[in-house]
Amino acid sequence: MTTTSREIQLASRPIGMPKPENFKLASVELPEPGAGEVLVKNLWMSVDPYMRGRMIDRKSYVPPFQIGQALEGHAVGKVTVSNNPDFAEGDLVLSMNGWREAFVSDGKGLQKLETFGLPEQAFLGVAGMPGLTAYAGLLRILEPKEGETIFVSGAAGAVGSLVCQIAKIKGCAVVGSVGSKEKGDWLKSLGVDEVILYKEHPNQQSLMKALKTAAPKGVDMYFENVGGDHLVAALDAMRDFGRIAVCGMISGYNDTEPKPGPWNLFNIIGKRLRVQGFIVSDHQDMLGDFVRDLAEWVPAGKVQWQETVEEGIENAPAAFLKLFTGGNTGKMLVKLS
Amino acid sequence: MTTTSREIQLASRPIGMPKPENFKLASVELPEPGAGEVLVKNLWMSVDPYMRGRMIDRKSYVPPFQIGQALEGHAVGKVTVSNNPDFAEGDLVLSMNGWREAFVSDGKGLQKLETFGLPEQAFLGVAGMPGLTAYAGLLRILEPKEGETIFVSGAAGAVGSLVCQIAKIKGCAVVGSVGSKEKGDWLKSLGVDEVILYKEHPNQQSLMKALKTAAPKGVDMYFENVGGDHLVAALDAMRDFGRIAVCGMISGYNDTEPKPGPWNLFNIIGKRLRVQGFIVSDHQDMLGDFVRDLAEWVPAGKVQWQETVEEGIENAPAAFLKLFTGGNTGKMLVKLS
Repeated sequence: MTTTSREIQLASRPIGMPKPENFKLASVELPEPGAGEVLVKNLWMSVDPYMRGRMIDRKSYVPPFQIGQALEGHAVGKVTVSNNPDFAEGDLVLSMNGWREAFVSDGKGLQKLETFGLPEQAFLGVAGMPGLTAYAGLLRILEPKEGETIFVSGAAGAVGSLVCQIAKIKGCAVVGSVGSKEKGDWLKSLGVDEVILYKEHPNQQSLMKALKTAAPKGVDMYFENVGGDHLVAALDAMRDFGRIAVCGMISGYNDTEPKPGPWNLFNIIGKRLRVQGFIVSDHQDMLGDFVRDLAEWVPAGKVQWQETVEEGIENAPAAFLKLFTGGNTGKMLVKLS
Repeated sequence: MTTTSREIQLASRPIGMPKPENFKLASVELPEPGAGEVLVKNLWMSVDPYMRGRMIDRKSYVPPFQIGQALEGHAVGKVTVSNNPDFAEGDLVLSMNGWREAFVSDGKGLQKLETFGLPEQAFLGVAGMPGLTAYAGLLRILEPKEGETIFVSGAAGAVGSLVCQIAKIKGCAVVGSVGSKEKGDWLKSLGVDEVILYKEHPNQQSLMKALKTAAPKGVDMYFENVGGDHLVAALDAMRDFGRIAVCGMISGYNDTEPKPGPWNLFNIIGKRLRVQGFIVSDHQDMLGDFVRDLAEWVPAGKVQWQETVEEGIENAPAAFLKLFTGGNTGKMLVKLS
């Protein structure tokens, strides 16, 4: 007996903003799982901004996706057939085998999921890679001190919204930049002190002024998800000895010509800034602390999250595209089953 | 009895490259030193790139120079009259009262100089602020490890040439960028491994290629004195977990319109770079270690330096202008007496 799995393959490398035709929905027949193998049916898959980088054929910290092959990414699935003593039928597993409905695996790279009462898809968001990204970027790279002010761009996203909330837990004042009033209202309800609706500030001068108004004494930390004008405004508003954690620069991911960088980088010298890039996979050692903290914060109502959900593998490309147009609040997910 | 002192005043704020007419040579009559005061005759004064920033009317880590007043900067002078028990006639003193031939002081801000056998003007260069800048920027900000590769721009300058030599002492491979073959030959004689003559690479692509050729495996550290294309090339050549110490960005100091920043800042994320600005005055605690190390390195021939000297207060503006045209090798000085 074979299983049919639908998957999304890379049809062509996007130039600029990805288009539906860069993706191809294909059906593949999965072999019956052999000795030591399991069959996993995916329940949820994640789409994340970093995947745009893997669509480019270049050397980077993760190898590029290959044309004609299924894309990859985090997914939560259920073991439906197991010939592997480490897994039982019904086990929930986290894998990098997203962008497909089902797959056969020898168990390598599968992580059994203990949900601790959280919804299973939370392990693609607040309790997963985006959550640890927020945790490591804020606590290890930015090192917040009580009473400091942080500016967060992409503040209603999966990473940004958790950065905002952990910063509040740590006693910081938080300024978040978001794309819509609805997102801003949600952040306000989480305790975020000031919200900037960046679409109301279509030029640098206006965004710089908005940040100075929101944080008249300047900001000590900037959590960078966006790049472009947001970075210019942050450099302008930073206080002496400020820190910038560079997590992503989504505003530039679809540029066909590289955009010039901030004209006010000289602030790095006069203000003695530290600008540091990071990737979550380098900070897996924080996972234990992260899970322990989350297990305290979630039941206490200190950490909340939102999800934006598309249904069906055929809608995964559309879900991915929404990341670049602000179509998601919180974690963008695709429900597969 | 009064003393006449000639001084250089700021006549007008430069727009773009400073011009001789931005400076005014003036004669002032100094009062006789009163009780507790000393008269100091300056022997040497320093011109440094950071002074360009103080000519702009803006808030920064040092207040701006005022029009119609003498400029300021480091100077080495000799006490010629003393009514202050802390100073004797003939004492050598380091002060911020440069750009003038003589001054009266109550002793505050004067630092008695013990030369340890070094020429007195060395305390404006290798053993002074530029020296400590190199020492702190390399050892504290970049934290070199044996076997690593460092790229230094402005490598034949007062700061850069010392960075190169300390990096060699620490067992690093050094690539230095300089403006002339003469400067490059000097660096080679100091043990610098590879020299880039940046004027032979008038565009970014060419400079990037030159750095990749000089450091085929990439660079672990970049000591930034220049900015512009040099920063683009460094970001391109950095290895994972590389560090950039931002000391200065002289290529932009005379811009009338801010220039765009590097288009390849995204490397900060993928390569997990740390980019850190610093100012020497924050690292005065390293002075003791610096002096101890220098006292060992200089007699051992491990640290050498060059000076470019103009004579007479009337030539101080010309000396300052040479900093921006590559007219100096090593420390640019003005001999006053």
